[in-house]
Amino acid sequence: MSAPVRTSIATVSLSGTLEEKLDAIAAAGFDGFEVFEPDFVASPWSPKELRTRAADLGLTLDLYQPFRDFDTVDEAQFARNLVRVQRKFELMDQLGCETLLVCSSPLPTASHDDGQLTEQFGALAELASEHRKKVAYEALAWGAHVNTYGHAWQIVEGVDHPSLGTCLDSFHILSRGDDPAGIREIPGEKIFFLQLADAPFLAMDILQWSRHHRNFPGQGSFDLSAFAQHVYATGYDGPWSLEIFNDVFRRADTQRTAIDAHRSLLHLEEQVAAANPAAGGPTLFTAPERTPLEGIVSLRIAAGPAKQDQVHSMLSRVGFHLVGRHHDHDLQLWRHGPLTVAVDATAGTVWTAPGLPADLPVLTQIGIRATEPEVWGERALALEVPATRVQLPGSSDENSEVPDVVRLKVTDATSIDLRGPGSAAAWESAFEIYPLPAERNREQGAVFTGIDHVALAVPAESWDGIMLLLRSVFEMQPHEGQDVTDSVGLMRSQALTLVQDGDGHTLRISLNMVEGSRSGLPTVRRGGVSHVAFACENIFGAAASMQDWGFAPLPISPNYYDDLDARFGLNSELLDRMRSAGILYDADARGEFFHLFTPTVGGDLFFEVVQRVGGYEGYGEVNSAVRLSAQLRANQT
Amino acid sequence: MSAPVRTSIATVSLSGTLEEKLDAIAAAGFDGFEVFEPDFVASPWSPKELRTRAADLGLTLDLYQPFRDFDTVDEAQFARNLVRVQRKFELMDQLGCETLLVCSSPLPTASHDDGQLTEQFGALAELASEHRKKVAYEALAWGAHVNTYGHAWQIVEGVDHPSLGTCLDSFHILSRGDDPAGIREIPGEKIFFLQLADAPFLAMDILQWSRHHRNFPGQGSFDLSAFAQHVYATGYDGPWSLEIFNDVFRRADTQRTAIDAHRSLLHLEEQVAAANPAAGGPTLFTAPERTPLEGIVSLRIAAGPAKQDQVHSMLSRVGFHLVGRHHDHDLQLWRHGPLTVAVDATAGTVWTAPGLPADLPVLTQIGIRATEPEVWGERALALEVPATRVQLPGSSDENSEVPDVVRLKVTDATSIDLRGPGSAAAWESAFEIYPLPAERNREQGAVFTGIDHVALAVPAESWDGIMLLLRSVFEMQPHEGQDVTDSVGLMRSQALTLVQDGDGHTLRISLNMVEGSRSGLPTVRRGGVSHVAFACENIFGAAASMQDWGFAPLPISPNYYDDLDARFGLNSELLDRMRSAGILYDADARGEFFHLFTPTVGGDLFFEVVQRVGGYEGYGEVNSAVRLSAQLRANQT
Repeated sequence: MSAPVRTSIATVSLSGTLEEKLDAIAAAGFDGFEVFEPDFVASPWSPKELRTRAADLGLTLDLYQPFRDFDTVDEAQFARNLVRVQRKFELMDQLGCETLLVCSSPLPTASHDDGQLTEQFGALAELASEHRKKVAYEALAWGAHVNTYGHAWQIVEGVDHPSLGTCLDSFHILSRGDDPAGIREIPGEKIFFLQLADAPFLAMDILQWSRHHRNFPGQGSFDLSAFAQHVYATGYDGPWSLEIFNDVFRRADTQRTAIDAHRSLLHLEEQVAAANPAAGGPTLFTAPERTPLEGIVSLRIAAGPAKQDQVHSMLSRVGFHLVGRHHDHDLQLWRHGPLTVAVDATAGTVWTAPGLPADLPVLTQIGIRATEPEVWGERALALEVPATRVQLPGSSDENSEVPDVVRLKVTDATSIDLRGPGSAAAWESAFEIYPLPAERNREQGAVFTGIDHVALAVPAESWDGIMLLLRSVFEMQPHEGQDVTDSVGLMRSQALTLVQDGDGHTLRISLNMVEGSRSGLPTVRRGGVSHVAFACENIFGAAASMQDWGFAPLPISPNYYDDLDARFGLNSELLDRMRSAGILYDADARGEFFHLFTPTVGGDLFFEVVQRVGGYEGYGEVNSAVRLSAQLRANQT
Repeated sequence: MSAPVRTSIATVSLSGTLEEKLDAIAAAGFDGFEVFEPDFVASPWSPKELRTRAADLGLTLDLYQPFRDFDTVDEAQFARNLVRVQRKFELMDQLGCETLLVCSSPLPTASHDDGQLTEQFGALAELASEHRKKVAYEALAWGAHVNTYGHAWQIVEGVDHPSLGTCLDSFHILSRGDDPAGIREIPGEKIFFLQLADAPFLAMDILQWSRHHRNFPGQGSFDLSAFAQHVYATGYDGPWSLEIFNDVFRRADTQRTAIDAHRSLLHLEEQVAAANPAAGGPTLFTAPERTPLEGIVSLRIAAGPAKQDQVHSMLSRVGFHLVGRHHDHDLQLWRHGPLTVAVDATAGTVWTAPGLPADLPVLTQIGIRATEPEVWGERALALEVPATRVQLPGSSDENSEVPDVVRLKVTDATSIDLRGPGSAAAWESAFEIYPLPAERNREQGAVFTGIDHVALAVPAESWDGIMLLLRSVFEMQPHEGQDVTDSVGLMRSQALTLVQDGDGHTLRISLNMVEGSRSGLPTVRRGGVSHVAFACENIFGAAASMQDWGFAPLPISPNYYDDLDARFGLNSELLDRMRSAGILYDADARGEFFHLFTPTVGGDLFFEVVQRVGGYEGYGEVNSAVRLSAQLRANQT
């Protein structure tokens, strides 16, 4: 039985002092770390103190990095560089670190002659050997001459020295669009180090992209799984290490980032294991597999006493009816067809996201019906996501080992509850259920067939962590990110989808980033609001029913419909019907999309009703500015 | 006498609703505006209401924009586009707007055949003429086929129709590095519109750069003055209009942005006028010219009672002595050689920057000695910068028309005071001046010769406004911006310099952006601190004197000096002296830089001592992380 994959992380990936970083790295379960030179240079710890602290924490110092601008056409400079690197080898002796990262030079004075490079790296390898050190040579994507992993490997192969190997960094390879399949040609023992980084696709200079926008595997757009499979196939058995330069991580909570980082490696190992690689390499982590989900069926909204009535009133107007009240808490139960919404005004349970005013209505639970919640709980825990087993008071078997509900914390405010088959009945036993008034029952045919999507307002610092949770535990797939412009700011929005096999439900959750904003603005003007979109099969019928129930359509500018007409040439009867019901429209090559919005409720929450026609897979993002403008005006009046 | 240049601005440049934008545009003194279609589409105003409101405000509607994707290889689509544009002409009739902006198509279906383009734009010109409209054709920098102003002009020239002209946009031209001199070949009457935008140099995709990072002339890195001179030379007499897509402006205060916008055009006109263009075009704005400045000689620091003692203690330890106390206010006067610092604990005068905790020491005044402050006052007012005349109580001629001090508000917290020759004496008459203790006088030779630079902490939303003020009123020149990384975040930093002719002083002010940060961090960890750097001629002597006065050097990590040695190979005696005095070092091809820092005082302010050797023009930015780390540790102990 081979040893498990060793996990490592560069200190530059985390916020804080070197002392804080090491504590967080050890606590998150890493085996080792790379020390980023500027972190060491600014630290008051002597080399020996760092070595002792790492040993006390059970961490190995896997790499000292980076050593820059080694090769050069200037021979006098080259001599000085050898002296400089010798000083670093001496320092590494004190640190107890064996491997030095040397990256290709981006300077105009870099050597452009492979013969000279082989000579200079030969001298370096010889010097390293004298100091019992190893050099891992890495091609920077913006290197002046050497900027592909193939070229770096060619130099290493040419030098052919046991003290010189290559370092593979997924960012430098995938950001250039290079084919990583060629990695399989490199002998595993000549790969001295592996650095893993993901990143969102951004149309920008690679250097800036690399220095500010990297993130952990599973948070960006690269195919890290395929990349890691190539490396695994070589027999490489060194650490899988994360080197992430990210402006948000640099100011985020150190401990939380370290935990996310470790989770990203576990999920990556799981993905590689799922590809059934040849045996013989280090043992890969696996978690219990996903089981089917039946879609979002319930929500809990926390609203302070001052806002509770507004939420109730809006629920009633969109067609929910009050069905019960919790025996012990200030918790009211509303229902519409297959959907349940609980409105929670219990003191102490009203959450708000950091930076938002208190007492706003907040979506605190998203309930998804699952046939086997317990398997999801095991899967989440294996991936180091805190999961709570909830046994409901009215459960038919209170001593069962199978929990009624498994709860995962998604944000500080919101959890996802995976609800087992008996959970609805068990839960309702804690409620006084009202008799349904007959006339209400008659007039109120359910028009919503389910929940199309739930949008969560997410602060910038939580964004990547939530993304990773949804992608690792649920294996949701990200759509292309969107920047949505409104009249008072810009909002980053990202939809994630879980399309299940067979006739399983499609789950959609979208994230909206809460960013800095003009102070004193009403919340609706920030863009960072949460909303719930109900699915229906006939939006005009739904709108008519809602009007019967007291819902007044959001006034949409007549200019919008004139422009829609100019853009799509829709027939005038359809336009009139949309206009009178406040329905917005979009279409793409695959289908059409109709949607309408409520005003915001209590300042922060709203509902949407959507009808998808054909294969339209978007969210009507093009209408965001019109929607926000209309909500803003509705709030002002 | 010709008419003045007409000023205009696109509604997309400002935050808020269309109603708010129009009010701000009129109040800032613009003559007209461009309506950005999405602003109109989201507005509840009918076309006639917008027309009426603009007329009531005295604004002309100069341009409707943009009309996208007009030309196409798909003839059926082209027919639909003609219908779509006809609808817009009808709308423009109602709006009372004559000119439509049509931009080149970035789509793969764009026409790549100049013959076809000429035909399609010919049809468009004919249609425009039937509707008594004009079309201004603009080349987008990312157009699929037409992406240079020269190419767009070639199509316009080929069509040769009175209803078709070109629109020049400085961003689309300068972002590509195109030579704007060719503009002089275009007849002025065929330039139907002029859009002006500046932008910082950013290594990124042009489309993203354009959509998020444009700013007003004088806030970025383009040579807008040369650009505008070329346009002026053609005889163009239409509006000078600003079209700015900027994420920060989108959430900034609407009125303040509009005022900055108008100022940017006035300063641009002034720059064009200074180039002495041929007579005959519209009349260009000019302001009174700058007169010499003698450097920063005084500062006022506001500190709440809780922090006042810490500021006094630090001033004393770096070699200032207390020379007096204000008769009426809680204001103490400190002096060191040529420099004066007033510490103000008067209730109600303690300013803090938005988002910072109250009661931190804040730099509230920067005093610059000027021979003719009244001229600066006139210049500032002409450029629409609020300037206050201050006549000091002890002035020798209290009825003089020449103010002792002219005060310009730079940020919410800080003003620049231009102090006339008699102002120091006049001001001190309000103070009780203490007799100087003899032994203090003996031991305290002044070591600072002046102020090397002052750094201001600036919130993101004030950044561009302050930049414009310093560049327009003082004509300070920006250095290349820096992103400074520290252990807990990233700070944008920008230095501005005013190098005066002859033996005039060099004025240096640097701006540090206060950005979002991990909540609960001590202020020093945010990076956004203000500081004052004193200049000296011998930093080792200065450090020795400071230690005599009780200053304890900031402990710098020994690893820093080991690394410095490896990088620069300095002699060991020099290294030892730097180490023992906590002095940091940098060098470039032109010279050397030595500097040392105090800990932060009261959480937000610190002092620096610098010695420049040779022509070094930087600020030792490379040492920022080490400095911040050392200050952070000093704060924790």
